[in-house]
Amino acid sequence: MATPPPAVKVYGPALSTAVSRVLACLNEKDIPFQLIPLNMSKGEHKNPHFLKIHPFGQVPAFQDDHISLFESRAICRYVCEKHGGEKGNKQLYGTNPLAKASIDQWLEAEGQSFNPPSSTLVFQLAFAPRMKIKQDEGAIRQNKEKLKKVLDVYDKRLAETRYLAGDEFTLADLSHLPNIHYLVSSSDHEDTAALFTSERENVSRWWTEISTRQSWKNVIDLYPKP
Amino acid sequence: MATPPPAVKVYGPALSTAVSRVLACLNEKDIPFQLIPLNMSKGEHKNPHFLKIHPFGQVPAFQDDHISLFESRAICRYVCEKHGGEKGNKQLYGTNPLAKASIDQWLEAEGQSFNPPSSTLVFQLAFAPRMKIKQDEGAIRQNKEKLKKVLDVYDKRLAETRYLAGDEFTLADLSHLPNIHYLVSSSDHEDTAALFTSERENVSRWWTEISTRQSWKNVIDLYPKP
Ligand SMILES: N[C@@H](CCC(=O)N[C@@H](CS)C(=O)NCC(=O)O)C(=O)O
Ligand SMILES: N[C@@H](CCC(=O)N[C@@H](CS)C(=O)NCC(=O)O)C(=O)O
Repeated sequence: MATPPPAVKVYGPALSTAVSRVLACLNEKDIPFQLIPLNMSKGEHKNPHFLKIHPFGQVPAFQDDHISLFESRAICRYVCEKHGGEKGNKQLYGTNPLAKASIDQWLEAEGQSFNPPSSTLVFQLAFAPRMKIKQDEGAIRQNKEKLKKVLDVYDKRLAETRYLAGDEFTLADLSHLPNIHYLVSSSDHEDTAALFTSERENVSRWWTEISTRQSWKNVIDLYPKP
Repeated sequence: MATPPPAVKVYGPALSTAVSRVLACLNEKDIPFQLIPLNMSKGEHKNPHFLKIHPFGQVPAFQDDHISLFESRAICRYVCEKHGGEKGNKQLYGTNPLAKASIDQWLEAEGQSFNPPSSTLVFQLAFAPRMKIKQDEGAIRQNKEKLKKVLDVYDKRLAETRYLAGDEFTLADLSHLPNIHYLVSSSDHEDTAALFTSERENVSRWWTEISTRQSWKNVIDLYPKP
């Protein structure tokens, strides 16, 4: 008897940072999913059919039996709320209001303070060269300075706690994986990798711990081989 | 017998957009609070004492008997989780996982898509003139274009549902109040106000509804009079 396909669908290419945030979360929670690729260079994310699921025409979009959602961090929260105590990593979004508040705080810090400079750097350092777009050296310099300030705060925090929100690996850590992955592995700018791998003792220890989790290795396996 | 001061403390000036987001939430939930002003022009948000509560040195910071938190949207979520079924507006962060997922989705859309262009415009149009900083016309033009695209999506959504996340006023709507308030009321740029008050039928209806709530009027009353 053939098994039915998984109910959970994620739309978008795995190599999109926002898509792989959701895939990392599904892996941590042991939720099987179908990855439905979109040809973004053909603009499939802007066609009317897709805009019904994601009105901003971006990836990822997410569906299960009950709901259709966009925004990677909202999707991650929903996956954890729905499967909280029951499947996979049970600490991922906390098990009480105080733990959850600390996770939300650092997840917001990621979305509001870490993501703006780091996603600009991901575009400039990893994607622009592949797309044969000229890099903007001013933007690279400026955003590297902003990112360093954020990482200095993280380094102090990670001197006190093993992970950002406390003693457990949570959504707050997970949400950083996609951007750091590109900054560490696919840029020629060695000094950018060093921000995470050698310049800050606690950030480096943290990055090694979170990036070697099996759930994240399984996401990387979905990236097209260069 | 003197009543003890409220256990909830919010640090920062009410006229900061991120601070007033938290105050709007506390008002909706009927939670009394102490507002502890910081003199930001004297850099009080960067002194070591304050950095212990907010390591990024920003406002707001939040404390109650149990926890110390930063990031306005995380604070709002915590206030709702803690006092969910018990005090004030019980729908504010939903009463079941599907409602909550829709709220998180639109709250993330606010933080990720609406806030970046609108907070730049708030700074350029409302704060720069007061601080006698020269306005950056290029940034104003660019961010207005970005904002219009976001509002076009909102207008379609608000043709289908009364509020962003569905039929109820929630954190997703509330989170927009501070930035829109400045763009509608304190800029000389009438065409910016028009984005919210006349150009888009459903956005205008929504803005009128959310901005005339008593909870928000009570926040405005805390702003220093010009
Ligand atoms: N805040 C959104 C960001 C989504 C986003 O920017 N996705 C990019 C790919 S990583 C995209 O779809 N870009 C195409 C576009 O914006 O047209 C989320 O976290 O889901
Ligand atoms: N994402 C933060 C933003 C906080 C923020 O940017 N606060 C501003 C005032 S609205 C601030 O403290 N600025 C001073 C600074 O960054 O040094 C939140 O929502 O709480």
